[in-house]
Amino acid sequence: MNSDDFSPDAGLLAPIWAGSPAEAATGDLAFLRALLDAELALARAQAAEGLIQDGAVKDIAAAADALAREGARTLALLARSGGNPVIPLVKALTQRAPDAHLGATSQDIMDTAFMLMAKRTREVILADLDRVTEALARLAAEHRDTPMAGRTLTQHAVPTTFGLKAAGWRDLVLDARDRLHAVVLPVQLGGAAGTMAAFEAFVPRVDHRRLLAGFAGELGLAEPLLPWHTLRTPIVDLGAALAFVTGALGKPAADVLVLSRTEIAEVAEGAGGGSSALPHKSNPVAATLIAAAARTTPSLAAILYGSLAAEDERPAGAWHAEWSPLRDLLRHAGGSAAHAAALAEGLRVDPDRMRANLDLTRGLIAAERVSAALTPALGRLEARDLLERASRRVVAEGITLRQALVRETSPGDLDFTDLDELCDPATYLGAAPALTDLALTRRGRDE
Amino acid sequence: MNSDDFSPDAGLLAPIWAGSPAEAATGDLAFLRALLDAELALARAQAAEGLIQDGAVKDIAAAADALAREGARTLALLARSGGNPVIPLVKALTQRAPDAHLGATSQDIMDTAFMLMAKRTREVILADLDRVTEALARLAAEHRDTPMAGRTLTQHAVPTTFGLKAAGWRDLVLDARDRLHAVVLPVQLGGAAGTMAAFEAFVPRVDHRRLLAGFAGELGLAEPLLPWHTLRTPIVDLGAALAFVTGALGKPAADVLVLSRTEIAEVAEGAGGGSSALPHKSNPVAATLIAAAARTTPSLAAILYGSLAAEDERPAGAWHAEWSPLRDLLRHAGGSAAHAAALAEGLRVDPDRMRANLDLTRGLIAAERVSAALTPALGRLEARDLLERASRRVVAEGITLRQALVRETSPGDLDFTDLDELCDPATYLGAAPALTDLALTRRGRDE
Amino acid sequence: MNSDDFSPDAGLLAPIWAGSPAEAATGDLAFLRALLDAELALARAQAAEGLIQDGAVKDIAAAADALAREGARTLALLARSGGNPVIPLVKALTQRAPDAHLGATSQDIMDTAFMLMAKRTREVILADLDRVTEALARLAAEHRDTPMAGRTLTQHAVPTTFGLKAAGWRDLVLDARDRLHAVVLPVQLGGAAGTMAAFEAFVPRVDHRRLLAGFAGELGLAEPLLPWHTLRTPIVDLGAALAFVTGALGKPAADVLVLSRTEIAEVAEGAGGGSSALPHKSNPVAATLIAAAARTTPSLAAILYGSLAAEDERPAGAWHAEWSPLRDLLRHAGGSAAHAAALAEGLRVDPDRMRANLDLTRGLIAAERVSAALTPALGRLEARDLLERASRRVVAEGITLRQALVRETSPGDLDFTDLDELCDPATYLGAAPALTDLALTRRGRDE
Amino acid sequence: MNSDDFSPDAGLLAPIWAGSPAEAATGDLAFLRALLDAELALARAQAAEGLIQDGAVKDIAAAADALAREGARTLALLARSGGNPVIPLVKALTQRAPDAHLGATSQDIMDTAFMLMAKRTREVILADLDRVTEALARLAAEHRDTPMAGRTLTQHAVPTTFGLKAAGWRDLVLDARDRLHAVVLPVQLGGAAGTMAAFEAFVPRVDHRRLLAGFAGELGLAEPLLPWHTLRTPIVDLGAALAFVTGALGKPAADVLVLSRTEIAEVAEGAGGGSSALPHKSNPVAATLIAAAARTTPSLAAILYGSLAAEDERPAGAWHAEWSPLRDLLRHAGGSAAHAAALAEGLRVDPDRMRANLDLTRGLIAAERVSAALTPALGRLEARDLLERASRRVVAEGITLRQALVRETSPGDLDFTDLDELCDPATYLGAAPALTDLALTRRGRDE
Repeated sequence: MNSDDFSPDAGLLAPIWAGSPAEAATGDLAFLRALLDAELALARAQAAEGLIQDGAVKDIAAAADALAREGARTLALLARSGGNPVIPLVKALTQRAPDAHLGATSQDIMDTAFMLMAKRTREVILADLDRVTEALARLAAEHRDTPMAGRTLTQHAVPTTFGLKAAGWRDLVLDARDRLHAVVLPVQLGGAAGTMAAFEAFVPRVDHRRLLAGFAGELGLAEPLLPWHTLRTPIVDLGAALAFVTGALGKPAADVLVLSRTEIAEVAEGAGGGSSALPHKSNPVAATLIAAAARTTPSLAAILYGSLAAEDERPAGAWHAEWSPLRDLLRHAGGSAAHAAALAEGLRVDPDRMRANLDLTRGLIAAERVSAALTPALGRLEARDLLERASRRVVAEGITLRQALVRETSPGDLDFTDLDELCDPATYLGAAPALTDLALTRRGRDE
Repeated sequence: MNSDDFSPDAGLLAPIWAGSPAEAATGDLAFLRALLDAELALARAQAAEGLIQDGAVKDIAAAADALAREGARTLALLARSGGNPVIPLVKALTQRAPDAHLGATSQDIMDTAFMLMAKRTREVILADLDRVTEALARLAAEHRDTPMAGRTLTQHAVPTTFGLKAAGWRDLVLDARDRLHAVVLPVQLGGAAGTMAAFEAFVPRVDHRRLLAGFAGELGLAEPLLPWHTLRTPIVDLGAALAFVTGALGKPAADVLVLSRTEIAEVAEGAGGGSSALPHKSNPVAATLIAAAARTTPSLAAILYGSLAAEDERPAGAWHAEWSPLRDLLRHAGGSAAHAAALAEGLRVDPDRMRANLDLTRGLIAAERVSAALTPALGRLEARDLLERASRRVVAEGITLRQALVRETSPGDLDFTDLDELCDPATYLGAAPALTDLALTRRGRDE
Repeated sequence: MNSDDFSPDAGLLAPIWAGSPAEAATGDLAFLRALLDAELALARAQAAEGLIQDGAVKDIAAAADALAREGARTLALLARSGGNPVIPLVKALTQRAPDAHLGATSQDIMDTAFMLMAKRTREVILADLDRVTEALARLAAEHRDTPMAGRTLTQHAVPTTFGLKAAGWRDLVLDARDRLHAVVLPVQLGGAAGTMAAFEAFVPRVDHRRLLAGFAGELGLAEPLLPWHTLRTPIVDLGAALAFVTGALGKPAADVLVLSRTEIAEVAEGAGGGSSALPHKSNPVAATLIAAAARTTPSLAAILYGSLAAEDERPAGAWHAEWSPLRDLLRHAGGSAAHAAALAEGLRVDPDRMRANLDLTRGLIAAERVSAALTPALGRLEARDLLERASRRVVAEGITLRQALVRETSPGDLDFTDLDELCDPATYLGAAPALTDLALTRRGRDE
Repeated sequence: MNSDDFSPDAGLLAPIWAGSPAEAATGDLAFLRALLDAELALARAQAAEGLIQDGAVKDIAAAADALAREGARTLALLARSGGNPVIPLVKALTQRAPDAHLGATSQDIMDTAFMLMAKRTREVILADLDRVTEALARLAAEHRDTPMAGRTLTQHAVPTTFGLKAAGWRDLVLDARDRLHAVVLPVQLGGAAGTMAAFEAFVPRVDHRRLLAGFAGELGLAEPLLPWHTLRTPIVDLGAALAFVTGALGKPAADVLVLSRTEIAEVAEGAGGGSSALPHKSNPVAATLIAAAARTTPSLAAILYGSLAAEDERPAGAWHAEWSPLRDLLRHAGGSAAHAAALAEGLRVDPDRMRANLDLTRGLIAAERVSAALTPALGRLEARDLLERASRRVVAEGITLRQALVRETSPGDLDFTDLDELCDPATYLGAAPALTDLALTRRGRDE
């Protein structure tokens, strides 16, 4: 840090990711390390193909170590004039080791470093997603038969179970995990305009595919079919998967926010947050931060989709516009996964409160079943009409659905032997337990 | 149409898709047909499981045909009070056929109809994408060895070939095609809150999985693991793939816009558009419309990602916010594919102009190779310095790189026997032809 | 409509705006009328400046009427080849009236028509916003002193009033109204590249400013300083104001969705929507549709902001990308305003339920005040500690805050003479009534 | 910084703003300072109203200085559990000075700090925008009569002037400056739920308006009508203005990118950027970075618009989602303004090249004028037909428009005395010089 008034981002405005593994994996030092790793891997691959000497590799490694220690700020300031940090990095590197960066272009190194950073960050995100799905599997199994109100358009609709809700959360998170896991992260190596011409300029009969394979192998990244300077599939796939992860985690967060409302109080975060003004409050902080991330990442991913339409062999703007959103997507997804793991593992569930809320509509939440049960005797339309009349009485007179049905019919009209059962929402769960079992047969990664 | 001043969208502001197959496949009549198809398929699946009688299916089919003829406008106006068109549709349907929509919720039918509309539209999009990739394969093969300037950040960088450029376009479009093709489109069937309880209410021992399989089979859609009322993977996957398609087609469009500039003139649309004021102009209209679509769809996809974080068993807003962007994504992708097919099939390529432009920098575009060639004799840094000095002379004095190199060195300093060859950009193509061959080994769908 | 399988948008997927005045004002026929109005106004202004004869104006008027009757679909299909509907429109127009469109470019007419359509639609939106603010003023005044729970991060925080909440909604909607009202909507008139050269070509000493003023005057639009073909301030200002309107209406909608939850039930829509499956449900449909619109318009506005960076004298894509989002913004804002007016005018408020919910935390919601009251005696930190201990007891033991405070202190420790008052949340309203009065001093448009 | 592997953002991926004044004004230390300034201003205002003692203010000032020195990282890590950094800040502050933060809520301080940071950053942005508009005014005046090709949809359309182009850029940047300057930045002060109740709890007859005015006066911010915890007009107005600034600067950047293409070469950045691989290249780096920013900010602003629909008295997510995009908007706008100032001040313009390019179409670019000139003799349609035939000959035979017209007509058909003049594009500038003069009458801020 070479300026007194320079004020780096220390995470003050980023409670979603401050202190998370994803933050450490995506910081400027981490990116600088990835840039240098890319240069060194290229050198090794070139040495293996005879483009440079083994001694040159040693020089490059030493130079890289020296530059890693110098920090990122100087490079950041130098990056302004060329538009990216690889240009001053290569200048500093080749002053110490002239055979560095041979035949490569700055985008080769930037893109490869991004893929490397993504690979490293993905590991920590996937680990946290595994914690999430495991905790959710436990919740779903434990609450397989716990009835609660199913809510649509904010209103009680019909009963469901908390087990099915948790199983649904898990299913969505597994979708997210699968999508993130499936993203192919390739090295980039094309030279100035994607023809790999400069490698040939130095060693006429260089085998481009072997060079590429060596480079990819050094870094544990994939080998692309073509240089992808302006074929941005890896960036978009990665960004889309990260937006999916954050959005998918936003689903349980949205539900936790509803269910922990003071009036509902069916779940609570294990460690809610305090308030600066109100000592008694316990806020659903993790759910709030995850929800905020889920509001943010769709727009960040949109920027990446916008960069697909990139002109020329390197675009003037579309490429540069990827960097900040892509890093922020890694961070939002990583921070959300970390908070979601803690949230899922610590969630406190209150089945009694769920049962109490289920009875709030005094049986109306089971009206659908009563209507069906009366259909054989009354016909569908008359059964529905009867339920509508009875429902209105329930609301107007503050009575139960059972009471209302008795008042709406003449004695002997209907056989009410099983009316208590029919009006009990806790037994109207449909396939919820079976669906929960079925959903839990889907395997997580390490299961 | 029941209102004199009602003014339906006739495509006046949508030249990207007006008249395209995707427009016909996504209009309100098409969606109404999909809604009715979903209701009918549900009835058939329910009859197979014994929930309703075969006669009821016939009634439903007749009622559906009647409603399809009545048009969509009445339904649209009735949809306001309930928030979706299925509510008035079901009311009209059950007046004619009381056993329709049994146990289903309006979202079951809306979501299924969307998947059905997506399936039908996807077919026409994929067909047009196949036309695109086939035309691009022909262009790539034909121009495998056609040299042109590689451009980065708007400036000539090093030579490339038009074949590699076209092969790259094709590769990206194949990525798009693969992503769209891979999207799983499932039926939706959960009942009021996703527990499938109402089916059981009518027929206690109904087999939910068989009912679901039957429903899916009737429509040729996939069978989901769980009801996905608030697990929106299919919507997001579809939207993301459509945004990818549009963005990917935006890449060749962006290049065509650059290359058909008056000053560059290396390609031209087969049928450019006229101007209302300028009789001589021939505008790259298809590329312009595709470029406009590529600017639009990322934001539309972002809306869908935002709806992942949906609360409850049906959200109050997130679901409704999907409809318009999802349809528009189908249309933008479909319209772009149709225009791109015409563009790729009709593109006129001018190799002479490419060659002339390649010489604009008087050899500088091959400076990288000259520098490499001099490295063994001069060392890397000195070779680079010499080229920098020579390059400055080329610009300042308006001479060629060959001339500048001669002036910058003393006679006898260097062996210039192959300098003509070294300074000829048309022979500095690196792996471009080989990469083109390699890219063309990737198969399209029907190849 | 000239194609059997053409299926125009009849609003089936647009319950937010189907049947609204904004829909009629923005349909394709309305836009076609605006295009023709623009051509006619140009002709009149040109006749006034001597560029064309009065007889030519009559011919143009007659031709415009004829074209308006022919409908928009033919034009839409013809628009594909040139990329915009003005090109075929002008062709048809000049076949009948050769002096039409003299010196203008298609963008002059498209942009002017958009401004004209925006002006007409703005009037109906502003009228509905006035209905909203008037209804909210009544609600705020009526419930100036109605206590209810103030909620932060989903939890009860301290009391507020429904009057202040409604006054806040109104204040935000007034902000929206002011912003929409302030947008300057200018004519566009620049000719092929914004130099107005063609007018001069026909009449050498034409006064450009007078021609422009005449054109603007004919249409009731503003006179721009410069042609704004690629200076898109009016589009962005308009789009931003419309996104603001929709977002601002989304605030009361979000609150209504919370407050009408089954468990909270403090407000209800006057006319909630039914369910296709559940006869007893009354859904907050208007709030849901407004909330959906508020999720959509930010992304649409983003597309318009993206088109600010438009290259050349007319861009290849950025301009065309404006049309669909701009119209949709007009429709979302107009539909939201119409639904919000009905929602605000019909909202049912339940002060008893608000009072009951206020007591749910058994006094904790007033803990802040108790803490302040004890501060003089105990000091700030000790007072806060006491309240924290008491709060925990309230939660753990199910007692009231008053009871907990008695148990946490020794008899005689504190003077509890006014403890009942201190623990009564209904009297801890702070400046809420005064702020309500203050907010209502802000005038609406016609007040 | 308390973690070895913590890697703060040093600007490595942000060449648009690294090292700019806006970066320093928005860093975490700057935000921490703004938070502490807000707390201190609140204390001073409260002392003036008798809520706390003057000695307490001194304690708070001392505590604030101490906390400012401790750095932001610790606070960032502590912020995770409560969801925002004010909660741990207040804890640390009140340990040293118990009367700090009296009656306030964390959002009061966060929002006020954001407004304060925005006010400080706006000053540096406005200063750079003034540099931009002044430089553009000079360019416009200098090139008032410099003809160049007007380009639409990538094709030469009719001539324009570089003066008008620069004047248009300036006009758009003035629009941006006016919008940013007009944004009202208010303090936030509402207490826990926006009722200001806690101030009253401590001093029963406190005058809320005077307290608010004092708070605002201390900080030089505006006084709001109501607490705006969930009435987010200031945030949205600010975000929208910043997106407008970035987008508006993107217009000249887009043009510079086109005009500095190797084939066009009409302008060049004063200090273009080098390439890591190509010594001879001079890239339009500033324009590229500004263009990248203009691709990014629309999506960031969309996030803010999305937060308008915030539920309750503080929302669970919508508020937290504002922080990162709002800061990034300040940075993108500030960085873009700084780069744009350098770009505008250093832009090299090549009138000779403009003239040469103007002649590329061999007179066709003036065809519109010739058509107009022949209209009196031939009638409009015949004149247009003749020009169309001649235009085709120009293209097909490689001749000039003048030659083509001679060939298309019989000797004596037409009076060609002024055909040379008519076919000279450099004299067909329409109102471009006059429009330039007119645009320059619009005043910048300090003019």
